[in-house]
Amino acid sequence: MQRSGIITLLTDFGQRDGYVAAMKGVMLGLDPAAKLIDISHEVEPQNVAAGAFILESHFRYFPAGTVHLAVIDPGVGSPRAALACYAGGHFFVAPDNGLLDFCLGFSDLQAVRLAQKKFWRETISSTFHGRDIFAPVAAHLARGEPLHHLGESFVLQRKLPPLLCQIKGKVLQGQIAYTDRFGNLISNISEQQLREFAKNQTVTITLAGHLIGSLNKTYAEVPPNAPIALIGSFGFLEIGVNLGNAQLRFGARRGTPIAIELGS
Amino acid sequence: MQRSGIITLLTDFGQRDGYVAAMKGVMLGLDPAAKLIDISHEVEPQNVAAGAFILESHFRYFPAGTVHLAVIDPGVGSPRAALACYAGGHFFVAPDNGLLDFCLGFSDLQAVRLAQKKFWRETISSTFHGRDIFAPVAAHLARGEPLHHLGESFVLQRKLPPLLCQIKGKVLQGQIAYTDRFGNLISNISEQQLREFAKNQTVTITLAGHLIGSLNKTYAEVPPNAPIALIGSFGFLEIGVNLGNAQLRFGARRGTPIAIELGS
Amino acid sequence: MQRSGIITLLTDFGQRDGYVAAMKGVMLGLDPAAKLIDISHEVEPQNVAAGAFILESHFRYFPAGTVHLAVIDPGVGSPRAALACYAGGHFFVAPDNGLLDFCLGFSDLQAVRLAQKKFWRETISSTFHGRDIFAPVAAHLARGEPLHHLGESFVLQRKLPPLLCQIKGKVLQGQIAYTDRFGNLISNISEQQLREFAKNQTVTITLAGHLIGSLNKTYAEVPPNAPIALIGSFGFLEIGVNLGNAQLRFGARRGTPIAIELGS
Repeated sequence: MQRSGIITLLTDFGQRDGYVAAMKGVMLGLDPAAKLIDISHEVEPQNVAAGAFILESHFRYFPAGTVHLAVIDPGVGSPRAALACYAGGHFFVAPDNGLLDFCLGFSDLQAVRLAQKKFWRETISSTFHGRDIFAPVAAHLARGEPLHHLGESFVLQRKLPPLLCQIKGKVLQGQIAYTDRFGNLISNISEQQLREFAKNQTVTITLAGHLIGSLNKTYAEVPPNAPIALIGSFGFLEIGVNLGNAQLRFGARRGTPIAIELGS
Repeated sequence: MQRSGIITLLTDFGQRDGYVAAMKGVMLGLDPAAKLIDISHEVEPQNVAAGAFILESHFRYFPAGTVHLAVIDPGVGSPRAALACYAGGHFFVAPDNGLLDFCLGFSDLQAVRLAQKKFWRETISSTFHGRDIFAPVAAHLARGEPLHHLGESFVLQRKLPPLLCQIKGKVLQGQIAYTDRFGNLISNISEQQLREFAKNQTVTITLAGHLIGSLNKTYAEVPPNAPIALIGSFGFLEIGVNLGNAQLRFGARRGTPIAIELGS
Repeated sequence: MQRSGIITLLTDFGQRDGYVAAMKGVMLGLDPAAKLIDISHEVEPQNVAAGAFILESHFRYFPAGTVHLAVIDPGVGSPRAALACYAGGHFFVAPDNGLLDFCLGFSDLQAVRLAQKKFWRETISSTFHGRDIFAPVAAHLARGEPLHHLGESFVLQRKLPPLLCQIKGKVLQGQIAYTDRFGNLISNISEQQLREFAKNQTVTITLAGHLIGSLNKTYAEVPPNAPIALIGSFGFLEIGVNLGNAQLRFGARRGTPIAIELGS
């Protein structure tokens, strides 16, 4: 388990009130050489599923051995577990609320429940475990502390309702997983799944009964206000509206079904 | 006076127009090894009291010897002094407008009025001392320049109206000090002051005549839209509304009185 | 061509969805020692002219040899060229859409069209060249890769309609170049141009027929809601409204004419 020296941060704290900086201060006190990189602090408050999607989508662009600190923690103060994981060659530190569901897809998964208080701050508040527990644990991990020193082994279990992506008859069925800041609807259908299904044939894409059309490459290919389906920057099929907002247009959200059929 | 090599930044510049980056460029030109950490750039424009509260609340999470650069500077271009301080084991660089009032509480306080122009940029604009004076001074401090080289000794004096926190009869009286981005009202009553007053008895909390109730631990303990009082992430008693906005509900702001009585 | 080890980032991606972090992860994988500094990620979406103004205004505050990565890329997926430049002692990596027009003003300008795919990510998406092409190229440049290794020489040509700044008869004529987050209107008339024209005489400033007045030094010099002209933090003449929004007041935008006459 190598270390990259990088710690990423993902929260729903915003950047106005200084909470993120408090976590960074704590980490730099323990690991002065840490490279701290923000993934996002603008996750919709308490939206664990949105945070999980962003983390799963982006962690792989960092070098192996990076520590990813994710604190979207509506259950802070309740007895929910605090976790550290190793999966896909990366480390993750987060509450046990579904943020790390995607780690279940990796064969190298190891998880511990944080319990060794010597790796925490001395005083633990009841509202800010990000600063008092998760941040110092992330810094110790980044410095090379072995995962299993941090607590006992933990059997990670899925916490969020899973999204389905399946072929049923002649239809590839998926669901909306995330809405970006422009209201584009990102599905759980990956570029590879779409390609294997379509095998270079034309497809017709439908969102909860609304006809979107075939697959395009860039937003510029359709007129203003027209809906469009394309493989977006997350690497998944996404539905947008050129110069518009697909979330508002279609009233869609996480879980809304999307269907792909062969032919036009 | 050790140095941590870290410089934090606190401004009301926002992050859209690039002003913060100009300050960072200037500092990295003088101290290429500096670690630059944003505390906030979303302080309400010209709200010196809000900036002071954020700075006082979070600086202590950084290692001793950190330089904190704070530029909320409605008086830029006027003859207000430009300051550097050492207090609580940390360095601070800011205009003399109340941002550093809290430094008066530290017995190791030393302050200078910035005067040695060799530590400034060559050309000084009349609107952006953050870039032209404060940033280069912060970088020189972080590199190890002694405080007293930067200018003459200065007697720091309180600039903002102080908030009161006192026991009067059987009532602990405090005031609202800060409103966070969710409209939660953070008071100036610390966890320790509250504990010493309550001595494990039940308390009843009132905000400007509105009954809030007793002390809770987490927002989840009250129903949606109910007011709640708890020790928040800043370490102070705060008033919120579960899934709501206490600032809007109670019309409160900095200075609004809060009272705590024993009993229920 | 020295290197500072710094890479700056300028995009219109926002910071909510994690795209910026994906670029940073890619760069740190290639250049673990890179210092990554955000200039802005809040450029108005697809507003190339606004991004160009911010970049031209702020890059000079960084040490020579800094690499500036600018991705405002409405043409991603179209055959627009991807560029790397050396100009003014700095490196720039950006799409060929006007972001780098200002580099034409430097006598040391060298430009290449990015073509050497060994400096790109292995898989290139059709929507996110920032992550797949521009970011890895910026990291290679920062590590010391010679510019001409990245592709063939390219003759940079102006892409955006130029703004005029000229003396016509007894009038110095300029145009609005950028609107900041407060609605202040920043012109293309530099402090130096204004000084050479005015030669210490009083001037009268007009914005698209609206009388603004003479030149002030700070916003505090005029009453609330009064218009004001001053040399702002960008180093250019700007028009504001004290505690108000000049863009809304005057309906001005990029290109709106501004005129300066001698006398009052």
